[in-house]
Amino acid sequence: MFISKKEVQVRYAETDQMGVVYHANYIIWLELGRTQIVEDLGFRYADMEKDGIVSPVMDVQISYKKPMTYGETATVHTWIEKYNGVKTVYGYEIYNEQNDLVVTATSTHACVRKDTFRPISLKREYPEWHKVYEENKKQ
Amino acid sequence: MFISKKEVQVRYAETDQMGVVYHANYIIWLELGRTQIVEDLGFRYADMEKDGIVSPVMDVQISYKKPMTYGETATVHTWIEKYNGVKTVYGYEIYNEQNDLVVTATSTHACVRKDTFRPISLKREYPEWHKVYEENKKQ
Amino acid sequence: MFISKKEVQVRYAETDQMGVVYHANYIIWLELGRTQIVEDLGFRYADMEKDGIVSPVMDVQISYKKPMTYGETATVHTWIEKYNGVKTVYGYEIYNEQNDLVVTATSTHACVRKDTFRPISLKREYPEWHKVYEENKKQ
Amino acid sequence: MFISKKEVQVRYAETDQMGVVYHANYIIWLELGRTQIVEDLGFRYADMEKDGIVSPVMDVQISYKKPMTYGETATVHTWIEKYNGVKTVYGYEIYNEQNDLVVTATSTHACVRKDTFRPISLKREYPEWHKVYEENKKQ
Repeated sequence: MFISKKEVQVRYAETDQMGVVYHANYIIWLELGRTQIVEDLGFRYADMEKDGIVSPVMDVQISYKKPMTYGETATVHTWIEKYNGVKTVYGYEIYNEQNDLVVTATSTHACVRKDTFRPISLKREYPEWHKVYEENKKQ
Repeated sequence: MFISKKEVQVRYAETDQMGVVYHANYIIWLELGRTQIVEDLGFRYADMEKDGIVSPVMDVQISYKKPMTYGETATVHTWIEKYNGVKTVYGYEIYNEQNDLVVTATSTHACVRKDTFRPISLKREYPEWHKVYEENKKQ
Repeated sequence: MFISKKEVQVRYAETDQMGVVYHANYIIWLELGRTQIVEDLGFRYADMEKDGIVSPVMDVQISYKKPMTYGETATVHTWIEKYNGVKTVYGYEIYNEQNDLVVTATSTHACVRKDTFRPISLKREYPEWHKVYEENKKQ
Repeated sequence: MFISKKEVQVRYAETDQMGVVYHANYIIWLELGRTQIVEDLGFRYADMEKDGIVSPVMDVQISYKKPMTYGETATVHTWIEKYNGVKTVYGYEIYNEQNDLVVTATSTHACVRKDTFRPISLKREYPEWHKVYEENKKQ
């Protein structure tokens, strides 16, 4: 399976008064990971949106192992955990610079028409994405 | 001139590692103030957007007088500082519960078509808004 | 079991280019729900932090059922799903104004010392919280 | 004068329903510019905070010239507009990939003790920063 890697510098704005990265901000980093894996696999999510297709999040499961602080750089590992032609489950691990695992997560996505929020089949509408996702998903 | 008041509870997510509200978040509170004054004057910004009109920010000037912390409630005072039928300048003062002035700000807005970002005349397209803005602006 | 209710107006800042609330922002609303239930049960999380105790999130599971848009008001229902004297699992349901279920979630929390991130026993250190949590948790 | 350059990829999370970057998010990018210029000049703001010194924003003036969208990369140019040993005014210009000017801004900062919010003299407490800021500021 293909694993994409994306470096993310902690922003001051992302910390909270606990002195560490606020937990909801890691969810945004997962999105940076998705943007990266889509790009690494040869596509651009922005192009899909130009066709009037959006890919909302259906659910997220995230576990926090270790806090991160301002001044650190994270690496988001992203892979295709499951894919069936309609739904995609991405898997994630976030590491700090000491290579400690700080976050594990999964998120599930469908593709829908922006105007109706009706699901589409990636397999039928984007056969090239489908092929590449099939080839690179976790076996 | 009409002054609108909007209470805002500090969210934990809005703090940073300095232990106080992160400065960019007050800019979001200004928007809550604008939403409130528009509603107090009898309109809904969401309705304007349904017509394909959006009102982007052209500039913001903001001064921070005193920090705010989680557990506190702010009151955003908002008024129409200037209005000429095309551009609106909103004025703001944010107070804490001890009535200390914590932020002063102004922001300038135009109304534009969402698809082209071309400016429209509020006076011509929304004569009722125009009338109410003229009557309630700072004289 | 006690269910706390907290109204949240959708902020323009919380939307994304999909035209709906950005998914990570609901995680912030869960926190507003927690702040409210703690207050409804007679405590203040801000006071706990003054003692040098913080309550980081250990994990979150969230499912998105229906999108919400700017101009709408959500109601966050929050309850104590599980509590064992050390860890607390909060349960959440978010509803829109038509009473449609838009989000379901759970989040798990421990209490730790801010300086060391070492866990403490709520039962031992905050016996009053412990008592109230025991009485109001899901049976 | 020294001009620091920092690339920033637009995050999906940073867009709003207008389809462009939400205006408050550029304020966060200014901070990325400051983090970069401090680092380019040989220092780390995170180290200053370890000494118990923080550098709150006193005011911000920002003008929006052109919207940016998801999929684009911005470059934040940051320089020391004014510096007098106590207060620093940073100047900023943000450009898109076509080298269009999208934002101009300034922000004013002091250094204060984290526990009291009392101002300190950078000149006296951090003579090396002082020297470098004097040498690299706009003349």
